Amino acid sequence: MSVKSLSDLFIHGLSDIYSAEKQLAKALPRMIRSATNPDLTAALDLNLQETQGQIERIDQIVEATGLRLKRIKCAAMEGLVEEGKEQIDEVEKGPVLDAALIGAAQKVDHYEIATYGTLCALAKKLGYPEAVTLMRETLDEVKAADEKLTVLAEQDVMPEALAT
Amino acid sequence: MSVKSLSDLFIHGLSDIYSAEKQLAKALPRMIRSATNPDLTAALDLNLQETQGQIERIDQIVEATGLRLKRIKCAAMEGLVEEGKEQIDEVEKGPVLDAALIGAAQKVDHYEIATYGTLCALAKKLGYPEAVTLMRETLDEVKAADEKLTVLAEQDVMPEALAT
Repeated sequence: MSVKSLSDLFIHGLSDIYSAEKQLAKALPRMIRSATNPDLTAALDLNLQETQGQIERIDQIVEATGLRLKRIKCAAMEGLVEEGKEQIDEVEKGPVLDAALIGAAQKVDHYEIATYGTLCALAKKLGYPEAVTLMRETLDEVKAADEKLTVLAEQDVMPEALAT
Repeated sequence: MSVKSLSDLFIHGLSDIYSAEKQLAKALPRMIRSATNPDLTAALDLNLQETQGQIERIDQIVEATGLRLKRIKCAAMEGLVEEGKEQIDEVEKGPVLDAALIGAAQKVDHYEIATYGTLCALAKKLGYPEAVTLMRETLDEVKAADEKLTVLAEQDVMPEALAT
């Protein structure tokens, strides 16, 4: 019973997403190399840059709050990364794999939307205004990335995959 | 290279979410038993009922399209369920665990939102209108459940956890 308060829960959640972001930063380069569509390559490149920025924001939250993160491995991101890898192995490079990569990236985006949503609510209740501001920036980034991928899939990648 | 077309990708995605929903249906009863707040218990109960309905919708899609699902295990849902179990083990029963359970349930909701979003786009391109209609029903259900949990966490469960 290591989690007894909302503050413990916040630390646990922040440690979890820190692990998730680090796993994602490791997994993205292979996803980028596996993409064909140049707009998708650019979107995943930006995703990697933003992920590094999101890790830095967590460092800033740790500094602002004086909290200490735990060393945990995010099991959910492990599963999401595993799924992405399976698709790279099972789908030939080209527009169908591009569509699969977009799906995988959007699952990751939604994992982050759910997690930072909860963490923002916790930070607000716990009185960590800098944390709220920083995580809202991340949330806006991730939601924008998700919407861009939806448009890219529907208008560009999926029609291309149907035509081949 | 077992996935060569958007149709293969649709079958793979549908098989994946079928496995995810079944895993969730197995995991929810323990989450329900671990909840204290009566509104949360009711929300998770409804989630279980809706999950069963969502499995039935996938059966209907299979029937309407004549597609054959593959036997795969959704690695991402395995990770999400694992995370939920860890929280039940690490947090004492009461409002803090309730807040953790809401967070876990919202991660699952967002996994479904991302997955059904991609599957809807694929079904539309592939000309499966019944599948689109059925999955939009599921999407609406899951988005509504997610919003309800946000309100419950912010207005009820988190303030209660802070006060204890």
